Amino acid sequence: MKLGFLGPKGTFSFEAAKKYLKDGDFIEYKTISDIILGIINNEIDEGIVPIENSIQGGVTETIDTLIENNEIFVNSELTLIIRQNLMGNKKYNLNEVKELYSHPQAIAQCRNYIEKNLKNAKINYVSSTAMAAKEILKKDFCACIANLDCVEEYGLTLLDPDIQDNNFNKTRFWILSKKENDVGNKMSLIFSTKNKPGDLYKILEIFYINQINLTKIESRPAKTELGSYIFLVDLEINEKINNVLNLLKKECKYLKNLGKY
Amino acid sequence: MKLGFLGPKGTFSFEAAKKYLKDGDFIEYKTISDIILGIINNEIDEGIVPIENSIQGGVTETIDTLIENNEIFVNSELTLIIRQNLMGNKKYNLNEVKELYSHPQAIAQCRNYIEKNLKNAKINYVSSTAMAAKEILKKDFCACIANLDCVEEYGLTLLDPDIQDNNFNKTRFWILSKKENDVGNKMSLIFSTKNKPGDLYKILEIFYINQINLTKIESRPAKTELGSYIFLVDLEINEKINNVLNLLKKECKYLKNLGKY
Repeated sequence: MKLGFLGPKGTFSFEAAKKYLKDGDFIEYKTISDIILGIINNEIDEGIVPIENSIQGGVTETIDTLIENNEIFVNSELTLIIRQNLMGNKKYNLNEVKELYSHPQAIAQCRNYIEKNLKNAKINYVSSTAMAAKEILKKDFCACIANLDCVEEYGLTLLDPDIQDNNFNKTRFWILSKKENDVGNKMSLIFSTKNKPGDLYKILEIFYINQINLTKIESRPAKTELGSYIFLVDLEINEKINNVLNLLKKECKYLKNLGKY
Repeated sequence: MKLGFLGPKGTFSFEAAKKYLKDGDFIEYKTISDIILGIINNEIDEGIVPIENSIQGGVTETIDTLIENNEIFVNSELTLIIRQNLMGNKKYNLNEVKELYSHPQAIAQCRNYIEKNLKNAKINYVSSTAMAAKEILKKDFCACIANLDCVEEYGLTLLDPDIQDNNFNKTRFWILSKKENDVGNKMSLIFSTKNKPGDLYKILEIFYINQINLTKIESRPAKTELGSYIFLVDLEINEKINNVLNLLKKECKYLKNLGKY
């Protein structure tokens, strides 16, 4: 089994990948789009991608890539508790840290901590938390915010553990492949409305009448004009789902089924 | 009139600020949260903040700061066409560019262009497009992606104009203050549901029955647990709006009125 993940090793995505797959080939990709293209081009059997964080919200690169590409299905999901940690290439006091490296989302998740403890550090954004760990290996008086795995993976020194502002910090991941699942209590759909007043209401009515519970709705721009949107919904489904899909086909301008899981 | 904007000078926010206010004091802030705090603390009369981009979607920092702070109202809105430009500290050929600096959203908006023309350039994320312009002033063989104003503002050389992947690239800005408008055809609300099945449907029904058109719905995490959301909606209102607000108060767990504009 070849599983693609958002690298390098030491990212939260890699932690999620190891949680999902005990034994197999872990293939490193640089972007979420590259993972999904890797599935389409048969380089990997499955890919694991972040879909939503409990603080930052939907991962727009994942949602947009799923909107743009067809024949990719959700096979399962997995939730990871996110703990952010401050580390350096050796032991420093917090007031000695001159520069801080991390992914913009990790910086955002520790904003209050940084404001309080690292007020004078220059912030440098890099493409992943593990990339930040790599970046500071040879840089004295610099720190990174990253997954605890990076201490071991890159030989860093832990300066301060669990520095996230909010302890309800979880990321939900999707495992994607080209195969559509037959079974599952959940389903995700992507749709756009005909952009007439009441359109979204009429679509939610179809779910409501058929006792299908919407657990998440996310809007993304249609990228053609302001005011035109594409929706991603997660549903708890029942035996009426095929009938619901037929009703939705008539009501939506566009409908894509990401499958059961 | 003191108007706060997301600085430094040369950002798209500054272009929008100059479009909104011909004459006045433009006060530079480092973050969107700082602008909103500046209004609350009476440092500025009004603040201009990006709320939505036609490609990247909602500006989550703006939405989250409006959720967290009270007594801030939307007074008007303004839309700016976004054109991204490549510039350097002198003239370079594209294949000579070794490093590229910009804000993550600007990089995302030019992803195809970068992939085609700047494949080998190392990407460095900074906090704004104008900060990227400042960053490369003394760096040879580096380029930034920024607003055309930065050529003049910082004395840079234009390497390639209009490099955005999508020409439908617009950003909508809100002008915020402590004063609630009495008049306007639009209104924005922030609400959370009681998190029971059909809750969102029942709220949209109130709008539908009263012929109030929803022009935008955006969900943000409640930051307490996965699966719990806060919604931001933009409405085209009519004379029934006060009645609608009373009905919403009963149906919503939490309701905040951002005012008419």
